[in-house]
Amino acid sequence: MIRHIAMFTWTAEATDEQKAAVATALDELPGLIPQIRSFAAAPDAGISQGNYDFAVVADFDSADDFLVYRDDPRHQAVIAERIKPILASRAAAQLSL
Amino acid sequence: MIRHIAMFTWTAEATDEQKAAVATALDELPGLIPQIRSFAAAPDAGISQGNYDFAVVADFDSADDFLVYRDDPRHQAVIAERIKPILASRAAAQLSL
Repeated sequence: MIRHIAMFTWTAEATDEQKAAVATALDELPGLIPQIRSFAAAPDAGISQGNYDFAVVADFDSADDFLVYRDDPRHQAVIAERIKPILASRAAAQLSL
Repeated sequence: MIRHIAMFTWTAEATDEQKAAVATALDELPGLIPQIRSFAAAPDAGISQGNYDFAVVADFDSADDFLVYRDDPRHQAVIAERIKPILASRAAAQLSL
């Protein structure tokens, strides 16, 4: 199983509406991309200081299935239209579990 | 449920033995800290470029249970003795799911 993790920090200029639109757009992807086995996308809960602002954890049966998700044009549209306009920094990894 | 995510990059000087020792030490924590509901700690699988080197995803029933883990001296010992000596950068978030 491949677990994909991505974390983002937002620019100081990002509005609450723009931040919320990221979660809304990402949450549509599991209904569009059947290779997604498990999907969680949410803002940081504010428990610890120094955290990133938002994270995605998504599970796939295989690396090939992850690549289908990564390269899907609907996913790429969320990145281009919702994430990149407010993105300050990104951290990602894929774990083979 | 609280999902804790942490990702690390390692210094250029970090040895394979040091990197492997992080996973070995972290994998002992679920047997020591009963508040951990689910735990995965592994190196990046090498599927995508520009990724972090290692990630941890751990689930807890509550924020209080996460704080027990975060502040447990055995966890703090792994951070101090295994992670910090080879740490280049860290990204973390906790999601309320």
